[in-house]
Amino acid sequence: MNSIDTLSEIFSHFPGIGPRQAKRFVYYLLSRRQDSVESLVDAIQNLKRDIRQCSECMRFFPGAGNTCNICSDTHRDKSLLMLVPRDADFEAVEKSGGFKGLYFILGGSLPILEKEPEKRIRLSELKARIKRDSGVIKEVILAMNANAEGENTAEYIKETFKGEGFDFSELGRGLSTGSELEYADPDTLKNALLHRTK
Amino acid sequence: MNSIDTLSEIFSHFPGIGPRQAKRFVYYLLSRRQDSVESLVDAIQNLKRDIRQCSECMRFFPGAGNTCNICSDTHRDKSLLMLVPRDADFEAVEKSGGFKGLYFILGGSLPILEKEPEKRIRLSELKARIKRDSGVIKEVILAMNANAEGENTAEYIKETFKGEGFDFSELGRGLSTGSELEYADPDTLKNALLHRTK
Amino acid sequence: MNSIDTLSEIFSHFPGIGPRQAKRFVYYLLSRRQDSVESLVDAIQNLKRDIRQCSECMRFFPGAGNTCNICSDTHRDKSLLMLVPRDADFEAVEKSGGFKGLYFILGGSLPILEKEPEKRIRLSELKARIKRDSGVIKEVILAMNANAEGENTAEYIKETFKGEGFDFSELGRGLSTGSELEYADPDTLKNALLHRTK
Amino acid sequence: MNSIDTLSEIFSHFPGIGPRQAKRFVYYLLSRRQDSVESLVDAIQNLKRDIRQCSECMRFFPGAGNTCNICSDTHRDKSLLMLVPRDADFEAVEKSGGFKGLYFILGGSLPILEKEPEKRIRLSELKARIKRDSGVIKEVILAMNANAEGENTAEYIKETFKGEGFDFSELGRGLSTGSELEYADPDTLKNALLHRTK
Repeated sequence: MNSIDTLSEIFSHFPGIGPRQAKRFVYYLLSRRQDSVESLVDAIQNLKRDIRQCSECMRFFPGAGNTCNICSDTHRDKSLLMLVPRDADFEAVEKSGGFKGLYFILGGSLPILEKEPEKRIRLSELKARIKRDSGVIKEVILAMNANAEGENTAEYIKETFKGEGFDFSELGRGLSTGSELEYADPDTLKNALLHRTK
Repeated sequence: MNSIDTLSEIFSHFPGIGPRQAKRFVYYLLSRRQDSVESLVDAIQNLKRDIRQCSECMRFFPGAGNTCNICSDTHRDKSLLMLVPRDADFEAVEKSGGFKGLYFILGGSLPILEKEPEKRIRLSELKARIKRDSGVIKEVILAMNANAEGENTAEYIKETFKGEGFDFSELGRGLSTGSELEYADPDTLKNALLHRTK
Repeated sequence: MNSIDTLSEIFSHFPGIGPRQAKRFVYYLLSRRQDSVESLVDAIQNLKRDIRQCSECMRFFPGAGNTCNICSDTHRDKSLLMLVPRDADFEAVEKSGGFKGLYFILGGSLPILEKEPEKRIRLSELKARIKRDSGVIKEVILAMNANAEGENTAEYIKETFKGEGFDFSELGRGLSTGSELEYADPDTLKNALLHRTK
Repeated sequence: MNSIDTLSEIFSHFPGIGPRQAKRFVYYLLSRRQDSVESLVDAIQNLKRDIRQCSECMRFFPGAGNTCNICSDTHRDKSLLMLVPRDADFEAVEKSGGFKGLYFILGGSLPILEKEPEKRIRLSELKARIKRDSGVIKEVILAMNANAEGENTAEYIKETFKGEGFDFSELGRGLSTGSELEYADPDTLKNALLHRTK
């Protein structure tokens, strides 16, 4: 395999990228000047060196120390722990500004019938975290995607950690911005009605 | 204008139909046998003859009498009145099985800055209905589409009927089925968090 | 079945219309005034009365007589006969202004392995037309859609009418407006190269 | 700017990638093991070292020497020179198997009213190539995308190299695979008719 194919192959595993776009990336790099390619190499190498993984929430963060700015913020509500699939989900929730508790990034979600859940999500890290904060955590919010994989993950977590002395909750379902009644599914409508706001 | 163009023009005002598809409808009819076209004409003529408009909720229903099966059902909860934009929205909500109150079909919604709201929605009929059931209605659910026009309609209704002795509520916003955290807008996320279910 | 369902059922057989949009059409008609629904009924009834099918090209046309304005135009080139699937295809070609011969509308195309081709396309009418103009027609242009069904139809026609004393031709394949080299399929590229213009 | 943002910024300039997907790439890399990230860095560094740019057609190719396997293949027809915008376009044409001449990769195309064409396409390299092969080249095929930018580029090249002793040609326009007559634009239809195949 020549260098074009080797790099194409690597890019084709990037999220959302197929073989054709992977190749366009390679040609794009070939057409760039040497120093611009070196900047890319530097940035990739710096990434692994500068970015740490928070020992509490497992998210990647820039900076020193073992815990990220959120986990070390004493003003956050430690009784609330939100479980999200990925770093990008954490970012979306944090940006919305509606949550003042702590997070834990699972690192993925569980397809139905997954045989080895511990390879898909950070199970042992979550157990350690929950054990350590035993008694402090009052509610674990299962902030999963609103699809079968998300529901399966939520079920699995609830089963695994039942009887641990905290409640579970899940994100509310309802009409998302822009949706129309006529095209909403029955579940969404029922929930939108149940959670109507006065 | 010849007969093809005349009928195309009429079809092009059907909801969601442009001039090109309108013409395909005409050619489709031309290619049908005479009796199948007569069935269409019969069905259209029967529609206006057989279908009545309920004097209470304003929806179109098949059958005799002045009120539809829902408005005349004594088991429905008369203290709850749901306002929906159109008949198709009513159908979606009723099919979801989550609502046991009564309905009123507005007949449309109000674009922002609409000068003549009474031409867009059934305002006088709604006033009559609310006056008649004064004291019975405890909550008016503004079941609007989750977009600017829906919000504007809700605001207008609340303003118009304030102080009438009932509460207003709106459908809950949250993650609709299939949506992913990462791509959810901040408002949807905040609402999903606020209305989380235990 | 009530009148709403009966008419929905008929609309759902219109080209490109599913059950949900069919129902929206019905509600749309219900919300129109009586005279506007009568206009629709009139237009449908006029259509069958005013529009004739040309005895030569089989297309639907407004006007008197047995043959349409194109078939009776003595300036058209009778040695060229273009076969198109439907009236809308005829319209697209005629509007492009590039063709000065005559047309024949097949009324459809042949799916692969179709057992009864004579029910899908106007085979007996085509045979009669070709027999009548025997010796006059020099070239039959098979103007089919550029897909498997179109190719199958072309093959079938060529097989059926071989040895009739005229040539067959097919529309040129190449880059259609807006297409990009990188995403073009090999066949399209080969043809675009073969038919390059100086 | 931290390392996540720096690398996101670089990825967001990759073809077809926006800021959100750029960030997903970064999180993807963060979640990979160290050795897999090192493989990426190696592959990028190898690319610039192993891949050469052909001195004749300007395309990037793996291997030794100054000219690529096509330009040094004595069986290719040197009288035909095809100009394509990018390496990916060259690949698409070469894979189609329909061309036996030589190529020149322009490196881009010219937006309408572009003030500095020499910064967008390899103009000086093309001039040198054409001068060197003066008398050998009989036809220059302008294989541009079928859009305004492609047409503008073709016009510019024709104007720049007129009177050089060779003909210009452009790829044939017609129905591309999968397209339907009814939806084809008039230009495409005219060309498809003009280039019909017997």
